[in-house]
Amino acid sequence: MKMPTALVDNERYKLMPFPTQDFTGLLGERYSEVASITEQYRPLEGHLYSQVPKAVAQPKSEDEVIAIHKICSAHLIPIVPFGSGSSVEGQAAAVAHGLTLDLRRMDKVIEINIEDMTATVEAGVTRLQLDRALNGTGLFFPVDPGADATIGGMAATRASGTNAVRYGTMRENTLAMSAVLASGEILDVGTTVRKASNGYDLVRLFVGSEGTLGTFTKLSVRLQARPETSAVAVIPFDSVAKAVAFAVAVLQCGLSVARIELFDERTIAALNKFVGMSLREVPTIFMELHGLIGTIDKQRGVITELAGVDEIEFGSTREEIDRLWGACHKRYYACRALRPGCDAFATDVCVPISRLTQVIEDTLADIRALPIPATLHGHIGDGNFHTVVLVDSKIESELKIFENYSSRLVKRAQAAGGTCSGEHGIGLAKKQYLAAEHGASLDWMRNIKRLFDPNNLMNPGKGISLD
Amino acid sequence: MKMPTALVDNERYKLMPFPTQDFTGLLGERYSEVASITEQYRPLEGHLYSQVPKAVAQPKSEDEVIAIHKICSAHLIPIVPFGSGSSVEGQAAAVAHGLTLDLRRMDKVIEINIEDMTATVEAGVTRLQLDRALNGTGLFFPVDPGADATIGGMAATRASGTNAVRYGTMRENTLAMSAVLASGEILDVGTTVRKASNGYDLVRLFVGSEGTLGTFTKLSVRLQARPETSAVAVIPFDSVAKAVAFAVAVLQCGLSVARIELFDERTIAALNKFVGMSLREVPTIFMELHGLIGTIDKQRGVITELAGVDEIEFGSTREEIDRLWGACHKRYYACRALRPGCDAFATDVCVPISRLTQVIEDTLADIRALPIPATLHGHIGDGNFHTVVLVDSKIESELKIFENYSSRLVKRAQAAGGTCSGEHGIGLAKKQYLAAEHGASLDWMRNIKRLFDPNNLMNPGKGISLD
Repeated sequence: MKMPTALVDNERYKLMPFPTQDFTGLLGERYSEVASITEQYRPLEGHLYSQVPKAVAQPKSEDEVIAIHKICSAHLIPIVPFGSGSSVEGQAAAVAHGLTLDLRRMDKVIEINIEDMTATVEAGVTRLQLDRALNGTGLFFPVDPGADATIGGMAATRASGTNAVRYGTMRENTLAMSAVLASGEILDVGTTVRKASNGYDLVRLFVGSEGTLGTFTKLSVRLQARPETSAVAVIPFDSVAKAVAFAVAVLQCGLSVARIELFDERTIAALNKFVGMSLREVPTIFMELHGLIGTIDKQRGVITELAGVDEIEFGSTREEIDRLWGACHKRYYACRALRPGCDAFATDVCVPISRLTQVIEDTLADIRALPIPATLHGHIGDGNFHTVVLVDSKIESELKIFENYSSRLVKRAQAAGGTCSGEHGIGLAKKQYLAAEHGASLDWMRNIKRLFDPNNLMNPGKGISLD
Repeated sequence: MKMPTALVDNERYKLMPFPTQDFTGLLGERYSEVASITEQYRPLEGHLYSQVPKAVAQPKSEDEVIAIHKICSAHLIPIVPFGSGSSVEGQAAAVAHGLTLDLRRMDKVIEINIEDMTATVEAGVTRLQLDRALNGTGLFFPVDPGADATIGGMAATRASGTNAVRYGTMRENTLAMSAVLASGEILDVGTTVRKASNGYDLVRLFVGSEGTLGTFTKLSVRLQARPETSAVAVIPFDSVAKAVAFAVAVLQCGLSVARIELFDERTIAALNKFVGMSLREVPTIFMELHGLIGTIDKQRGVITELAGVDEIEFGSTREEIDRLWGACHKRYYACRALRPGCDAFATDVCVPISRLTQVIEDTLADIRALPIPATLHGHIGDGNFHTVVLVDSKIESELKIFENYSSRLVKRAQAAGGTCSGEHGIGLAKKQYLAAEHGASLDWMRNIKRLFDPNNLMNPGKGISLD
């Protein structure tokens, strides 16, 4: 798989001298062009597009971000905002002549407002750090991608995770933000009020923009009340079709479902092996209910009835819940362990639920026929599912196998009215699929990109890009 | 209160001859410049900005909307998209030299997909029409502004209503749409998948754009599962502060609350008189819970405990619920009846919940001191509240009293970190407050307006406007 040439070869970025002294004067040792530092800024996972940046800056404040942007703007230097580097579609890939802007030193939890159920954080705060800060408040932040991503990065990729079926994604949970545009101008958009009809929704425009419109420095997010009690159910099914039909029924019954995840039999087998479980190796749903004590028990009967399955494992103690979801969260590593030494590439399509069974069945047939191992799991309450394909990236033909498979999968999802990306974003890997998905709207997205970033400095070549 | 002059006097719109024959050729009798028709296109409520358009077009199809836009674009004719005309901030006000585009003949429910829990409708379908179409599906469309607005109009104003605390506003519930830009270009944005991270969120950009970016022709919205059962509680409080504290506690407990509405004692008195109820005339919360049978009863005890009030009226039969909410829905007319022959102007601020008590108390003190009657009620789970002020619009000094009061209220809300509009939009009435609320972001909203509508033809002078 090749890097898009614009990212590494765009001559216009090289016309200007690199203003090393300006950066050093501003940031001292928090600016570096030394390989031992810059080498660390390859994306950490899914590193198809691994490159080393020209320079790395580690600002501590919004003012420094603004100053960095102004220097970059004056010298036509591409800026790659960088959080925890856990994005999987190449969003954090360095641009060879560019500056990677590491926001992890901007890690202050600025305010937690219990009554408003909001938190305001610097962009480099990670979700687990926010979790810890919320300890004892009775509130939690529901968006939970696999990695310990930064809140800024999560907003940039419009991330979600297992709780989205009940609590929404970063789209619904980002209330306000400060974003530094390419020019260094700072915009404060949105408010912490729960609703507003006060002009164009710039918050939602920035959420999911993948660093292409500006660098996020501060975000206010919505928190949720911790449920008085939770319960999990682990439900084996004969077939994917029955599992999806169950999920649809659950959604239509208005059960207080917080998560509903499907694992194919290979993922279950991988989990059994990796974490020492002994689940039946069939398509299996893990689901979690949130609610008041007493209201959960009532729902068990409904679940048993809807599932039509005898062997449901219910858990409602903290210990049981943690054990079961803990195992789920290890699924990525369990799948990796199926083929040690290889890369685990994740796909990420989302389709209307009415088409989910067919698309999953076709995809399972597809991965079963691959010469390399692959597993499937999904946030099926949202119609979003992933496959994890174990690729030996040293072997060009395996990369090609993955690329072809991934392309078939995306086209299958799009043909079903779905999208090439449910929650991972576009980055570099999905750019080729946007035209089919958006038609003329893509031109308008590019017009917006051009409006905010006329010199194409913000994360160029990724997402909605001009090249 | 004066019309902004740009709306009526902009000379550039008058430079071109009006292409009457083009329109007539396209639409026949569904195009008119006759006063008996055009006179009907004054906004129906809150008609501070009542004007008569030059012409009215009643397209039956998207193709006709496109053709109309092309004619208007060629002749620099302003376009005012018009649904049910129930917007209250002047959004549907006619432009004297402009064309009002009545979308009510585009009233087909195109598809209801039960499994996907989505509906796709033409823009002129009203919410009650959609309700009827959903009969027997087990699903409902949760966004419920007071009027029987069109779905297109509701998306345009980013409307909400009483259910937003649980189900969100048009922001969360609009999945996809077709919009005709000023030029006549049609954009299909969004998909019916439940989540996507596939580029800039043009759906959310168009939702709340109040006709200034394009005319919506078709929308896909999210439906919700009808709860197995519901219950209402009517809870009188000694003070607004106690009522708001109760609402905060309810949100933080994770009760399955669908609506939580506060009425001041004057609204209760008006309701008692208008619909013959006998509620105690104190600040009162009406709330509704949605859930499974058996899970609701459990919550009654929690509500009683949190409220600390003995005299809670619970209702859980369909009849009781309809009676209580039916009364609520008559509140606007009940308030109007406090001063027959006068206009009832509604305000619409939204503040962070932590500031809600203080802002409501200050506002109550303010309206108690007005020489004309006014009432207060709020969607307090969202921090959004309205006052209804009864104004004799024939008396200039009363209009002035309302204008000054409205300005004080907005500034009070903004000083508390809130917004000038929770759900009614900007239209003409709130434009003056945007600069204080958005700062530099307002310039960027205008840049976006200019990008999509360089000739300023789409609902000019309203919302995010260039004049």
